[in-house]
Amino acid sequence: MPEAASVPAARATVGAGEFDRDTALTRRKPGVYAIDLSADWTIFGVVNGGFLLAVLGRALADALPHPDPFTLSAHYLTASRPGPALVRTETVRTGRTLSTGQASLFQYDDEGNEVERIRVLASYGDLDTLPDDVHTSAEPPAMPPIEECFGPEDGPAPVAGGSAFADRLLLKLDPATLGWALGKPSGKGEMRAWFGLADGRDTDPLALLLAVDALPPTAFELGLAGWVPTVELTAHVRCRPAPGPVRVSVTTRNLAGGFLEEDAEVWDSAGRLVAQSRQLARVKRG
Amino acid sequence: MPEAASVPAARATVGAGEFDRDTALTRRKPGVYAIDLSADWTIFGVVNGGFLLAVLGRALADALPHPDPFTLSAHYLTASRPGPALVRTETVRTGRTLSTGQASLFQYDDEGNEVERIRVLASYGDLDTLPDDVHTSAEPPAMPPIEECFGPEDGPAPVAGGSAFADRLLLKLDPATLGWALGKPSGKGEMRAWFGLADGRDTDPLALLLAVDALPPTAFELGLAGWVPTVELTAHVRCRPAPGPVRVSVTTRNLAGGFLEEDAEVWDSAGRLVAQSRQLARVKRG
Repeated sequence: MPEAASVPAARATVGAGEFDRDTALTRRKPGVYAIDLSADWTIFGVVNGGFLLAVLGRALADALPHPDPFTLSAHYLTASRPGPALVRTETVRTGRTLSTGQASLFQYDDEGNEVERIRVLASYGDLDTLPDDVHTSAEPPAMPPIEECFGPEDGPAPVAGGSAFADRLLLKLDPATLGWALGKPSGKGEMRAWFGLADGRDTDPLALLLAVDALPPTAFELGLAGWVPTVELTAHVRCRPAPGPVRVSVTTRNLAGGFLEEDAEVWDSAGRLVAQSRQLARVKRG
Repeated sequence: MPEAASVPAARATVGAGEFDRDTALTRRKPGVYAIDLSADWTIFGVVNGGFLLAVLGRALADALPHPDPFTLSAHYLTASRPGPALVRTETVRTGRTLSTGQASLFQYDDEGNEVERIRVLASYGDLDTLPDDVHTSAEPPAMPPIEECFGPEDGPAPVAGGSAFADRLLLKLDPATLGWALGKPSGKGEMRAWFGLADGRDTDPLALLLAVDALPPTAFELGLAGWVPTVELTAHVRCRPAPGPVRVSVTTRNLAGGFLEEDAEVWDSAGRLVAQSRQLARVKRG
């Protein structure tokens, strides 16, 4: 497989990677967790939304009787900064094959008051118990092998301004969606990349929550500068990914009234559609 | 416009239609509302999920400072039945242009205990304040004029088993997605219809929440019988619809492991994409 060539020689295993270390939570009491949000997952000082989703997803995996996120809906309230945070979870319903929970992440203002950053509703199940029937008309994105795609280290930096976040990832963008980085955006709302973790840790269901919000905004290819904050993001995990980098395709069809949707699909090395997500984001002119 | 011909002679106005009557809530105290769920919006005795979304959406429109649902994420917990219900809302965050709230609908078991049916996280704004810029690559679905589409009254009943719900709607299905009703499903995960309310009330943002979950399941065209209960549904309202019936296109690309996604788009008579939704549903063999 082409992606094999790009995997670091020494690979971190699931449970022992940077992503595992930085999403680790300390249980204060049942359903309540403390975490110190690392600056390593920030872009321009703000903690990446997909990383936050993974933190809340990990808290719910601990709090709920089922291990795997099937569908998470996150509403982003205020920007998260590196530093101490508290995650409060609630078990909403427990069923035989699915359980539903809620989680919120809080930080503290200058007076020490709790400020809610993000709230999530999620339903969990066990991916390993699903039947293996697949009836799909979805096709993996047409994109070059990873060796022919470009990351920050290949310059010009595809992630505007560079970021600590980019250093945590293996992110190789399809040259066809890199026009914005060269001052020539395609005008199409498309962004495609190979995605993995920089330390070679494989993409498990929690890391898929990171993958769906890890690419540069499609707005860049639409010729828009500036910030595109997420209002709401819903992710569906459909299958446990096979080892190796995944392919992420993000598409925006409708930019209107200052809002746009970003639809992401994640495909594993076995050619399975492993996750789908959609976010509603605001366009703030830079 | 072709749809004009189909509009009932005497049209109910927004605020005075069956939909307005049956989604009306009684405020018990700030943020808490009572409603008697009408049997008129049920399919096989279960209250339609889109109708429930509209009920919670109306409660949040009352509880939040902004009038219009921009994005709602609903997790369906247990099936709702006609009868008394209580809606509890919480204001999560209030901002200048967006506010976020949560709402849950409860009913009562035989012992009178509250049972949660559905929980929603939503962000509201004011559609009338959005700039009118549109940059879209989305195209309205290719489907025949409403006169060449078929509803239950045209028999064979496109809504399996018929239902009180169907009588509340003007629902005219594209013959190209009616194969299932004739015992010849197309095998494609597509369902398209013209949608309106039977009394001619126009489709406002709240009614869009009904429209995104009003068509027969795409699973029927995939040749699957039985029930396809929604686990989670997220809807984005992108624009206030122009008067007249809307076009709804629902697509399923990936049926795998006993789950499928249903992506809905709603287009108004002016050719604007007014709503997008995605739901994750389970396939339960009939």
